[in-house]
Parts: sequence; C-alpha cells; structure tokens
Amino acid sequence: MIIDCHGHYTTAPKALQAYRDAQIAGLKDPSWKPSRAALGISDDQIREGIEGAQLKQQRERGTDLTLFSPRAAGMGHHIGDATVSQYWSEICNDLIHRVCRLYPENFVGVCQLPQSPGVDPKSCIPELRRCIKELGFVGLNLNPDPSGGYWREPPLTERWWYPIYETMVELDVPAMIHVSASCNPAVHFTGAHYMNGDTTAFMQLITGDLFKDFPSLKFIIPHGGGAVPYHWGRYRGLAQDMKKPLLSEHLLRNVFFDTCVYHQPGIDLLTRVIPADNILFASEMVGAVKGIDPETGFNFDDTKRYIDAVPLSAAEKKKIFEENAFRVFPRLKATLSAARRG
Amino acid sequence: MIIDCHGHYTTAPKALQAYRDAQIAGLKDPSWKPSRAALGISDDQIREGIEGAQLKQQRERGTDLTLFSPRAAGMGHHIGDATVSQYWSEICNDLIHRVCRLYPENFVGVCQLPQSPGVDPKSCIPELRRCIKELGFVGLNLNPDPSGGYWREPPLTERWWYPIYETMVELDVPAMIHVSASCNPAVHFTGAHYMNGDTTAFMQLITGDLFKDFPSLKFIIPHGGGAVPYHWGRYRGLAQDMKKPLLSEHLLRNVFFDTCVYHQPGIDLLTRVIPADNILFASEMVGAVKGIDPETGFNFDDTKRYIDAVPLSAAEKKKIFEENAFRVFPRLKATLSAARRG
Repeated sequence: MIIDCHGHYTTAPKALQAYRDAQIAGLKDPSWKPSRAALGISDDQIREGIEGAQLKQQRERGTDLTLFSPRAAGMGHHIGDATVSQYWSEICNDLIHRVCRLYPENFVGVCQLPQSPGVDPKSCIPELRRCIKELGFVGLNLNPDPSGGYWREPPLTERWWYPIYETMVELDVPAMIHVSASCNPAVHFTGAHYMNGDTTAFMQLITGDLFKDFPSLKFIIPHGGGAVPYHWGRYRGLAQDMKKPLLSEHLLRNVFFDTCVYHQPGIDLLTRVIPADNILFASEMVGAVKGIDPETGFNFDDTKRYIDAVPLSAAEKKKIFEENAFRVFPRLKATLSAARRG
Repeated sequence: MIIDCHGHYTTAPKALQAYRDAQIAGLKDPSWKPSRAALGISDDQIREGIEGAQLKQQRERGTDLTLFSPRAAGMGHHIGDATVSQYWSEICNDLIHRVCRLYPENFVGVCQLPQSPGVDPKSCIPELRRCIKELGFVGLNLNPDPSGGYWREPPLTERWWYPIYETMVELDVPAMIHVSASCNPAVHFTGAHYMNGDTTAFMQLITGDLFKDFPSLKFIIPHGGGAVPYHWGRYRGLAQDMKKPLLSEHLLRNVFFDTCVYHQPGIDLLTRVIPADNILFASEMVGAVKGIDPETGFNFDDTKRYIDAVPLSAAEKKKIFEENAFRVFPRLKATLSAARRG
C-alpha cells in the first residue's frame, strides 16, 4: 500500500472560494457578521474535481491513499480575526470530510486549525477535537507563522503552543508543520515561504527541548524538510555547538520529513542523509508545481518515481511508502478499517 | 590557487565590539551623537586574531586567498538609523582594509554597505565607491532584508535597488546576497535566517526579470544557495509554470552559488545539480559552525575536502576553486597584482 501523507484539496468547487471572497469582502463592512453559510456544493461537484485530478493521479501513479487536508495557501490565518478563521476552518474541514466519505479508500482527513495571529492556540482545540473525534481525521496542519510571512508568533518550543501539543498527545495525532500564504511581497509563497517555514521550524526544534516535555509528540516537516537535509552537516554542527544531543536522539524520535522534493538528486540526498524510519512518502499533488519536467517527461511532483529509483532496500521503501505513515498517524489503521466496514 | 570567496572577520579585536556596544547604548540617550571614534586597535592585535584563526586554517586546509568582509551577523542594519549604519560600516570596512594590507596575499576585501531599513539604497553608494576605488575591495555584501528577519524591503528585482546595481555595473563588482542578524525571536540567525535569505532572494530573482535590465550584474547566493539546489526541480518547475525561460538562461549567467555546505552529501548534490561554471569555492571560516564533525574527524566547515572528493574533472574543480572567482570578481586580478607589487 502506498500512502501519500501530504495532499491538499486544491480542486474544490468554486463555491468554496466564493464563500471565502464574501468573507474577506465583509471584513471591510462594519455591519457584516461572519456566518456559517451553506455552500450549496453537491456530491457530484466534489466528485468532478477529485476524479479529474487527485484520484486520476493516484491511479496513474500507482498510489493508494492520500492524507488529505484543506488547501495550505488557502488557510490564510492572517485574514480577519479568530471568528473568521473559525468559520472558514469548519467549512474547509467539513468539505474534506465529505471527500473522505465519498472516497473512503482513497482519502483520509487531516484538518486545518482556526489559528489567528496573536490568539491563544487554545482557541483551536474544539475544532481539532471535532475533526479527530467526530470526523475521523488522523492529523492536523499546524501553522508556525499565522502572520503570513512576518513570523510574529513565539517559536514552536514555547509554552504558548503547549495546549495544542497536550491535545495532540491525548488524541494521538501528529502535526504537519505547514505555513499558509505569504502576505509579505518579498517572500513568494511556494518558492520561499514554504521552504523557509520548514527550515525555521526545524531550527526552532533544535534550539529548544520540546520533546523532553512531550516525548510522544510527532511532527512532519513537509517539502523534504525545506533546506534541512541539504544542510544536515550545518544542523548537526549547530546542535553540537549548542551542546545538544546528536540529532538522532534530540529530534529524530519525533520529527519526520516528507518526500515533496521534485527531482531525483534531491530525493537521493534525502534518502542518503535521513534514516528511512524518518521519511514519509508524499507528493503534494495537485499542488505547488503542476508541470511536466522536460528533463524526464514526467510530472515534477510524481515523487513515487524518484523513490522507486533510489538505492534503498525493499524493506526501507516499504517503510517510506506505508509503514511509517501507520506509525506516525496511529489512528489511521482504525479509520481505514471503519471506512471499509462502511 | 584556491580562493575562498566567503570569509568574515569574526576574530576582530574586542575594541571593535566595544565601539559597537557604545554606539548601541547611545541610541537611548537623546544627547548622544554618533561619532567615528578611533578604535585604538594596533596591527599586532589584528595579527593575533588573524594568525591564530583564519590564516592558520588557510594554511592547514591548503587554501590561498579569502575574499574577506566584515562579520555578517554584525552588520546589524536594523540597529539605529542610516548615520549609525554609515559610521559602523566605515569602521568595519576600514578594519578589513587593514587586514588586507597586512596580508595582501591572503585577504582581499569585500565591503558591507551602510544599509538601513526603509532608507533609499542610494545612500550606500558613496561607501561602496570608497571601498572599491580607494580601498581596493572587489565586491560587496548586499542585505536583502535590513529589517533583520521581518522582510520589509521590496524584492531585489524592484527599482528601489537599481541605484546599487547601476554602481555595481559601473565599478564591475559582484554582490553576495547576505542577510545579517535576525532580531526576530522565531528565526534563528545562522540556522534559519541565513538559509531563508538565500532561498527568498533566489525566488525573487526567478519571479522578476532583473537581468534583462542588467545583463552583466552578478550575484553570489551563499550557503550553497540555501534550499535552492536541493529543490532545483521545484524551482525549475515554478519558473516553467510562470512562463520564464529555463533557469540556465533566466538566471545562471548572473547567479552563482558558493560551497558553504557542511557535509559531503550536500556538496555532492550541489555539484551534481548546478553547473561547475556557477559554483565558487567558499567555507565561511571561521564562521557559523566551528566544531569537528564526529562522523569525519574534520571541521564541518573544511569544505575543500568535500570538493576534493566529488567526481568532477580537474578542469571543473579548477573552475570552482579559482577560475570562477576571477571571472565573477573581475577586479580581483588587478588587486592581487597591485598587492604583489607592494
């Protein structure tokens, strides 16, 4: 079984963006109140988007299951206040749930949180609980920078974030550390902010001692870990200068990297440097890079081909494609079994 | 000849930091005026710092010449106003000049600019001219984020920066794009801000068309290009989605990467992905990572060993170690000849 741990709902029916546009337009109108509008999206509309894109690509590429969350750039935690973020998150998560009910063998939900800059992350717990306990989701996306490119929140190792971690441990779910759109004109979203978010978060984890307080907490750093595996020597050296334990002890019981690296040399480096136990297969399709690589004739984000080509054993590849996902997302097995029972 | 294109004066006598501390303390005192204080640093004090560190390591590692600039984290463009930055830059650049006069075969100067957040970069031109024309420097460090981690300046492709570029073209000098310290508590300086600065700047260059306006302008992206070579497929794909030319045409006539990547797998990837014509040898010693790698027994930043070990031809290695530096820093040959004439 091949599990893609990183897919976003980038092909949602237009009514979703229309709701969001109305929500954003309303922010300028003092008489406007955010509401949980009915979107009027039919199951057929959902099928149309999914079957022509994510499901089609699963079939073409030979992957089985995508851990599926709302569009990352669409989370837009910097827009409006916590109530706006709350309603928007509920709607987005509900749509993910509908996709997962329509295709229970192909998609399992991961939620976005109703974060808002400077707002106590405690406010996200009810929605997190709802998604895990009621909707059957298996993980969450945590945005380390809800300001959208200005990095105003405390580092992830600060107590500010602990209420989220306590709930994660209680519910036994991991978080993918994933920023959203950049509203900083100097910082391109998929070409800079995403990479920077991954790199910054990892360095925060080196600097702190978070996993002493939460030994079972699990994070996935997406996009192959940003700059981290390429600079693994730098990070080992910085940790050593800071008198931290070896990264294998300090972080690698708790931190995992996905395989959203869109060329063979990058995946070769990732799998050479990071233990197979810490790598989870992912493509982020249909996502940041949509085209066909003229050097290979295949989609840049068809990452399964790169993993197939690396000189790892079959057992190691099975970890990357499947076993690690079940280990990092402990609720996944039960969710899939429940879905199969119907 | 082996030229290290990226070294900072991290071992300056303590009087330099004492001046800076007084300058910073003065910012809180309304009666204080910034001044160009005499530092009272002797040649012997300079020799002591250099001979026990940078010069010693040049000899031990078998490198010949370092392109030497003030400490990057020390530039601190976010501190005080443009006058504070002006005086601080003059003092730092003058000290670099003294090092280069004491060791003309071993060090050639690269300047810091008196940038200040939100201040027209035109204000930096007199100091840039002075360093190149009077002090014999061959390049500059350009900080794309003088706010120190908040990214408030326009992208490098905006006309805001053009006065600097016009002067660079006139003087025939390249810029290393190098951020300074981070004053953002979420963003570690050498572990996140430096990498993010490199990645962000490269993505700005993809998005714009700067080199249409300045076909001879040259930039060096340090630290192996941040996340860029590891994600070369992503950047090729993003450029393609944006209908830009191939990166080889769009950027690689003007953009170069250094080799400050502190482990063999990273250098292997860099030299596999980026043409040898676009790679300049560098170590940034004595810099961000000072320790010995327990996996190799050698310093993490002894990058010459990694280049020695890659499967490139002798001709390609000669480009990386020497020839590209003379090409990217066109004033270097004349500066060295003048130094040898005494």
